[in-house]
Amino acid sequence: MAAGMSATVGQLAAATKGRIVPAQGLDEAAAVARVLTGVGGLGDAGPGDLSFLANPKYLGLLATTRAGCVLVGEAKPPLANAVQVVVANPDFALAQLVAAFGPQPVHPEPGIHPLAVIGVRTRIGARARIGAYAVVGDDCEIGDDVVLHPHTVVAAQVRIGEGSVLYPMSSVRERCVLGARVTLHNGVVVGSDGFGYATIDGVHRKIPQVGIVVIEDDVEVGANVAIDRARFGRTRIGAGTKIDNLVQIAHNVEVGPHSILVAQCGIAGSTRLGRHNVIGGQVGIAGHLTLGDQVSVTAQSGVGKNLPTGAVVRGSPAQDFKTQMAQEVSARKLPEALERLRRLEARIAELEKGRP
Amino acid sequence: MAAGMSATVGQLAAATKGRIVPAQGLDEAAAVARVLTGVGGLGDAGPGDLSFLANPKYLGLLATTRAGCVLVGEAKPPLANAVQVVVANPDFALAQLVAAFGPQPVHPEPGIHPLAVIGVRTRIGARARIGAYAVVGDDCEIGDDVVLHPHTVVAAQVRIGEGSVLYPMSSVRERCVLGARVTLHNGVVVGSDGFGYATIDGVHRKIPQVGIVVIEDDVEVGANVAIDRARFGRTRIGAGTKIDNLVQIAHNVEVGPHSILVAQCGIAGSTRLGRHNVIGGQVGIAGHLTLGDQVSVTAQSGVGKNLPTGAVVRGSPAQDFKTQMAQEVSARKLPEALERLRRLEARIAELEKGRP
Amino acid sequence: MAAGMSATVGQLAAATKGRIVPAQGLDEAAAVARVLTGVGGLGDAGPGDLSFLANPKYLGLLATTRAGCVLVGEAKPPLANAVQVVVANPDFALAQLVAAFGPQPVHPEPGIHPLAVIGVRTRIGARARIGAYAVVGDDCEIGDDVVLHPHTVVAAQVRIGEGSVLYPMSSVRERCVLGARVTLHNGVVVGSDGFGYATIDGVHRKIPQVGIVVIEDDVEVGANVAIDRARFGRTRIGAGTKIDNLVQIAHNVEVGPHSILVAQCGIAGSTRLGRHNVIGGQVGIAGHLTLGDQVSVTAQSGVGKNLPTGAVVRGSPAQDFKTQMAQEVSARKLPEALERLRRLEARIAELEKGRP
Repeated sequence: MAAGMSATVGQLAAATKGRIVPAQGLDEAAAVARVLTGVGGLGDAGPGDLSFLANPKYLGLLATTRAGCVLVGEAKPPLANAVQVVVANPDFALAQLVAAFGPQPVHPEPGIHPLAVIGVRTRIGARARIGAYAVVGDDCEIGDDVVLHPHTVVAAQVRIGEGSVLYPMSSVRERCVLGARVTLHNGVVVGSDGFGYATIDGVHRKIPQVGIVVIEDDVEVGANVAIDRARFGRTRIGAGTKIDNLVQIAHNVEVGPHSILVAQCGIAGSTRLGRHNVIGGQVGIAGHLTLGDQVSVTAQSGVGKNLPTGAVVRGSPAQDFKTQMAQEVSARKLPEALERLRRLEARIAELEKGRP
Repeated sequence: MAAGMSATVGQLAAATKGRIVPAQGLDEAAAVARVLTGVGGLGDAGPGDLSFLANPKYLGLLATTRAGCVLVGEAKPPLANAVQVVVANPDFALAQLVAAFGPQPVHPEPGIHPLAVIGVRTRIGARARIGAYAVVGDDCEIGDDVVLHPHTVVAAQVRIGEGSVLYPMSSVRERCVLGARVTLHNGVVVGSDGFGYATIDGVHRKIPQVGIVVIEDDVEVGANVAIDRARFGRTRIGAGTKIDNLVQIAHNVEVGPHSILVAQCGIAGSTRLGRHNVIGGQVGIAGHLTLGDQVSVTAQSGVGKNLPTGAVVRGSPAQDFKTQMAQEVSARKLPEALERLRRLEARIAELEKGRP
Repeated sequence: MAAGMSATVGQLAAATKGRIVPAQGLDEAAAVARVLTGVGGLGDAGPGDLSFLANPKYLGLLATTRAGCVLVGEAKPPLANAVQVVVANPDFALAQLVAAFGPQPVHPEPGIHPLAVIGVRTRIGARARIGAYAVVGDDCEIGDDVVLHPHTVVAAQVRIGEGSVLYPMSSVRERCVLGARVTLHNGVVVGSDGFGYATIDGVHRKIPQVGIVVIEDDVEVGANVAIDRARFGRTRIGAGTKIDNLVQIAHNVEVGPHSILVAQCGIAGSTRLGRHNVIGGQVGIAGHLTLGDQVSVTAQSGVGKNLPTGAVVRGSPAQDFKTQMAQEVSARKLPEALERLRRLEARIAELEKGRP
């Protein structure tokens, strides 16, 4: 499948501190020396591919996979084709191996492309890579090893920490701050005006949005996400949080560290999320709410109330997961229950007729 | 309405192999010679406009339309104002006529604009049109008649088939493949990293996304859509599939040929859709699922299970359309049913009192 | 919080025609002379900050706020720290003050950047500001005081009214029309092709989209919004309407003046909304519908029917707000009601056994 890799089973096992289980009829030395040139899913991989078993759903494919090598969490009896490498966390081991031996993202050359436009008093760190037609405003601070792809726009007075990567068509409005190792994928907007109006006699008058966005270290932001600047103060995305594509973050929202926001969810203004939240795809969270830590919201839910730490909610409006599931199960019985209700009414009427 | 067209009724009928039915009091020759200079809906069109009847909802407007000519599927008695042109499929006939006689999209001039940047070893096909500030990476293959609008970014090692059109602000990440006659509207992102992390001690560690996106022939992708590259292997959009605006396609998704994905729907990772699916607006489809062919999902539904060929589903969580409709109808009776239940309880208590 | 402001309480009161209520132990002259250098929420503001009370939810913070000055709608007894300035509408007063004394958006320098590309026969108004790498097509009319940020693309034959601002990565396709004082935030797409196909033998054939988009005066369009051009005729956004981020407007939609479309909502083709509508976040509205004036749709609802003026609806499918709320309340009682139904059936069976 994905070409561009080149490593032996021995190298892979060494890099992951993994234990090798040779395939049926293969001796240890041959297993160690086997060369992998690609990576693929258990169902797609061929003899030159590394594969892996992370989701137990795919356990059944182990017996038949044509992969040359497979990363597993527990040793199985020798497989027909694949050498097993037994590691603590196959998902993460694969990530390490691909990062070490796999194809790499293609970034612009080091230095500033002659067709990039850099503002006055702007400082660019060491080893930065700035592509064609990138535009950086005045008075910015761009850290070491930052990558600005072609067609990125960084407005005035922006700070970007070391090692951050901005992909094409991403843009950051004035005065916003990005930490270290932040990734903005294509089309991300950081610092657009918040959606705030004072309505006077039916006319919506704009409330200036003079705050900023602060994105802390190690945050990754998916394609075409919009993160609005604060009315004043700051919209904040906590360190290590990962945001999927097409997510909406309104002004003055605060997302705690190490949270996961799945695609197309939206968080309305001034809401605060704690640490390690998991917000499902297409979820909506109303404004001016507070969610605790480790809150989990299933896909397409709509949150309209504050939620305590550890809450697991579902539905629109969202309620406790088990309560909501019971309600969904009951709702499926509803057409039949209405029929039972009609029959009961008839039976009671019959009984009442017989009353003295 | 839309100006920039110029054709007689005779030309329109010839181009569509349509039959002419003159308006009341108009002779055949005058009907054939009537000139149309624009196109409009039945309610808006004027005497110089071509109109059409495709949706029966608008049948009542035929009697009063001021249009000079109207495309219909079946001949009606002569109309007050409009000449009828009777064709097999008015929608498609209109499309043909507008394509032939109407205003055309404005593309860049043929050739490579001097302010475009083209990478090394990149081959550009015959008659390609590449606009100002377009950026094409190294080692790309750009087919004949491809149009790259100003402000498009095509990263390294990308292949784009003949006749494809990329509108401004669309971008394609490294190694992805577009077939022939693919259209990417403004702001489309093809090949952004999939959303994949291995969580170790509460910290989300990125799993490299080294696969690609393959978009087959004749696919059209709406504004600001995001299509993630595969973890490894490929995310694939089948030939002839049409994707509306702001849709999310996660890594390793496969969408079969000739499907329709309506605006703002989202498909989670590794899910496979068959041929001729119709996915409604704002639908969410969970990850690792398989949907058959001709599956239809109504707007705002949430699909959490595999679906067989021909399934028609609705609701969140989605279930069989008729089952869901029965449940929705029943739910509307629920407040009254609870009241009936209360009354029954009272009546039974009364009966029980009278028991011996 | 937000720095870059500088005004005395006296200046703020004069600009808003507000009445000053000194803080506890502060004389009038000292209150008037107090200098504010920033703006912050009641909970975050410090002694140099202006704050405000608009949402009664935050009333409790007045007693403890460290803000130097607070805008209020009604005078309270003197506060511990903050000087009060009593105004008719604190939200709007704050907006005025920040606009007058606060930090300003950073726009490109006046004039046309030497790296912008301007088409032939295009007229650029007085005092326009056109940034690096902006592209304006042929035969456009760009009004006075228009701001085109770096990386904006305006296609051929587009008209843009005076004072409009296009932020980076926003783009307008050919022939579309923007009124005066329109704002397009980053990544907005105006005039992408509508999603229209005629399906012949299972193949979706494109219906040319030759209409335009008309955006009237004083409209603001949020980041990464997509507004499709009409099939023919026009897609229209009425004057003073405000559109939040990631909203989808399909072809031939008409949105009346002074409406509010909250983030991630979507309106399908040919639907017409009246004046002063409020469409909640993630709402979907089906195609070919008519909504009256002052219609209000709560977040995540799905509208599938015409709605009269003044309608307030909720749910998916949406129905009258009170009806829907009653249904939601009843649904929560459903699991318990099914249990009651089972018990009734048993009790009736018991009674029936005793019948003569």
